[in-house]
Amino acid sequence: MPERTYLITPGPTPVPPEVAAAMARPLIHHRSPDFKVLLEQTLAQLRRAFATEQEVLLFAGSGTSAMESAVANLLSPGDDVLVASAGNFGDRWTKIARAYGIEPRIHAQPWGEALDPAAVAAQAQGAVAVYITHSETSTGVVHDVRAIAEALRPAGALLVVDAVSSLGGVELAMDEWGVDVVVSGSQKALMTPPGLAFAAASERAWTISERAALPRFTLDWRVTRDSQAKVQTPFTPPITLVAGLNTALTMIETEGAENVWARNRLLGRATREGAKALGLELFSPDDDSSSMVTAVQMPDGIDGQEAYGLLRDRFGVVLAGGHGPLRGKVIRIGHMGYMNRFDIITALSALELVLGDLGYQAPTAGAGAARAVEVFAQLETSRV
Amino acid sequence: MPERTYLITPGPTPVPPEVAAAMARPLIHHRSPDFKVLLEQTLAQLRRAFATEQEVLLFAGSGTSAMESAVANLLSPGDDVLVASAGNFGDRWTKIARAYGIEPRIHAQPWGEALDPAAVAAQAQGAVAVYITHSETSTGVVHDVRAIAEALRPAGALLVVDAVSSLGGVELAMDEWGVDVVVSGSQKALMTPPGLAFAAASERAWTISERAALPRFTLDWRVTRDSQAKVQTPFTPPITLVAGLNTALTMIETEGAENVWARNRLLGRATREGAKALGLELFSPDDDSSSMVTAVQMPDGIDGQEAYGLLRDRFGVVLAGGHGPLRGKVIRIGHMGYMNRFDIITALSALELVLGDLGYQAPTAGAGAARAVEVFAQLETSRV
Repeated sequence: MPERTYLITPGPTPVPPEVAAAMARPLIHHRSPDFKVLLEQTLAQLRRAFATEQEVLLFAGSGTSAMESAVANLLSPGDDVLVASAGNFGDRWTKIARAYGIEPRIHAQPWGEALDPAAVAAQAQGAVAVYITHSETSTGVVHDVRAIAEALRPAGALLVVDAVSSLGGVELAMDEWGVDVVVSGSQKALMTPPGLAFAAASERAWTISERAALPRFTLDWRVTRDSQAKVQTPFTPPITLVAGLNTALTMIETEGAENVWARNRLLGRATREGAKALGLELFSPDDDSSSMVTAVQMPDGIDGQEAYGLLRDRFGVVLAGGHGPLRGKVIRIGHMGYMNRFDIITALSALELVLGDLGYQAPTAGAGAARAVEVFAQLETSRV
Repeated sequence: MPERTYLITPGPTPVPPEVAAAMARPLIHHRSPDFKVLLEQTLAQLRRAFATEQEVLLFAGSGTSAMESAVANLLSPGDDVLVASAGNFGDRWTKIARAYGIEPRIHAQPWGEALDPAAVAAQAQGAVAVYITHSETSTGVVHDVRAIAEALRPAGALLVVDAVSSLGGVELAMDEWGVDVVVSGSQKALMTPPGLAFAAASERAWTISERAALPRFTLDWRVTRDSQAKVQTPFTPPITLVAGLNTALTMIETEGAENVWARNRLLGRATREGAKALGLELFSPDDDSSSMVTAVQMPDGIDGQEAYGLLRDRFGVVLAGGHGPLRGKVIRIGHMGYMNRFDIITALSALELVLGDLGYQAPTAGAGAARAVEVFAQLETSRV
């Protein structure tokens, strides 16, 4: 692979140099007052990022660990549970539930669709909890969590949201929207390397959690909450990653969360327009809701996995291929986290060059990059 | 706290600058060929560190996550299990088992004693597995895993060893000694920040694992093994920590594992001799088996927690206090990982200064540091 690489993926996303520098400082001890200050600040930042008054629980783990915690801490054998899915990460909820002996009911929609709030609500009757995904990175769809929460209210089921790849990159107002559980991870819009997982729960969810009978130890919510109430962690935390996250969240707050969301929307728009200018079809919805990742369909006869490999090996441009049924059919370009206009122009330029190698000619040379520049010229204010 | 700090604890241990530099490099994607090379190398290094031909499974988590995996992947409700403990971390096995609905039988010895292999074996009859600790950092005792494995052989129970704070710092020959499961973490003798957990299992343990009925998902051994067989991880791994670990393990292999063990023994010897020269009594055994951490008793009338706080706040010297019944009674000095003679001299000097503040006078001024220098002069070869 080329020495210089461009990580333009739906995650893990590039780590800002400020975050890398924070992680490179001498290790501090997790029982020391300096870590207490760091942890207290970071937990407050996380509450703001989650838009919740609830404690945001911090775990050593992947984003999937946080998802697992939202099964193990809420459910008991025999519980009636609904998973609503239209993609790879929605399906992960089912896999986790089954690993814990829970057979969920499944509301499935075709990959690429947005979940239909009314249809989800119609099936939620009687369920203890409904598990959904916010940003379905396998398809580029950002589901309308606010509308789903509203539609679900009469049914009374808990709403559990996988926000691993959305939190910080697109609006998610946990308390205001009435979302019961939000789980996330460090390595997507939060601009920190992977290894930290988060979960926050509403009062209602905490009450249900009290009677949950599935086993858990390091992912135990109550143990973690009790420890965090003393500004501690129950087990040795990933100290360097907490230091990095603190810096990343400070950067996000300095830029302003709404400015970050606007930037992701703009980058998404430029990605879509650039891809269309290359003559390609979008798999992701062609509107601003698709602000985290764009799935672009490959032209007939071109294998997306081959294009993905060439992009990486010739140019060091790391995009993402397709999951499951989309494997080989799409290339996904991430536009969350520490990315800007030039990353998108780079991705579109590299994609054009590689598709050219594979026999596909863009309508005009440089059409993708040119159109993206045009979008930025038209839509950018002084601050992106 | 003083800006300059000295982490002379039983973990997390200081991170070498080479490791910090490796973690500060631009993030690579975990599905890219460059990560594959890194992972393959690191897994091979881990197999050498574990002294096993088995796959060493890598998880995002704390050392306790790895312990939890050795309960969830081996046991089923109703299993007969023995926990043998003489300290805080031995007792953790019982807490984890109970969280999974398993009530273990307990072989308990007083804190500070070494586990008696014959006594453990006598109780192991009928047990599926015996859970023990290698380096019990709450007391400074390194249990004789080799002798326990030998004594257990007739009973046929699996031997599961918590090597979180020992692996890489003291000999542990998993395959040769017939240990069935070894679990560990990144932040002790392996000189890497916390956030990575490891587990390796013998053929026998894998067979038992096939019928284990406790739920697990991100800590699932089989899923992880199947993924690692393709030089992948099933979930996004803590990429920066893997990069750091790779560098740390290279440093350990370059120094030579046996030289590292010898250094830890020497540092332990100097710590004990220095503490005795200060007129203090040891809680840890006064012999070279105690090579990872030394627990020093506080003089009558001096609160160890107060001394711990003063050491930290006046001098930035972070040692460790006592756990459970030893709280306030001992101070623990770590001598594993990235530590050398001058760290021990620093710890002894700071301890003398702080005990002086608290009204305790050493027999002669500087007695601890002086005796440590003498030990190094007598025992050091050209290479420590």
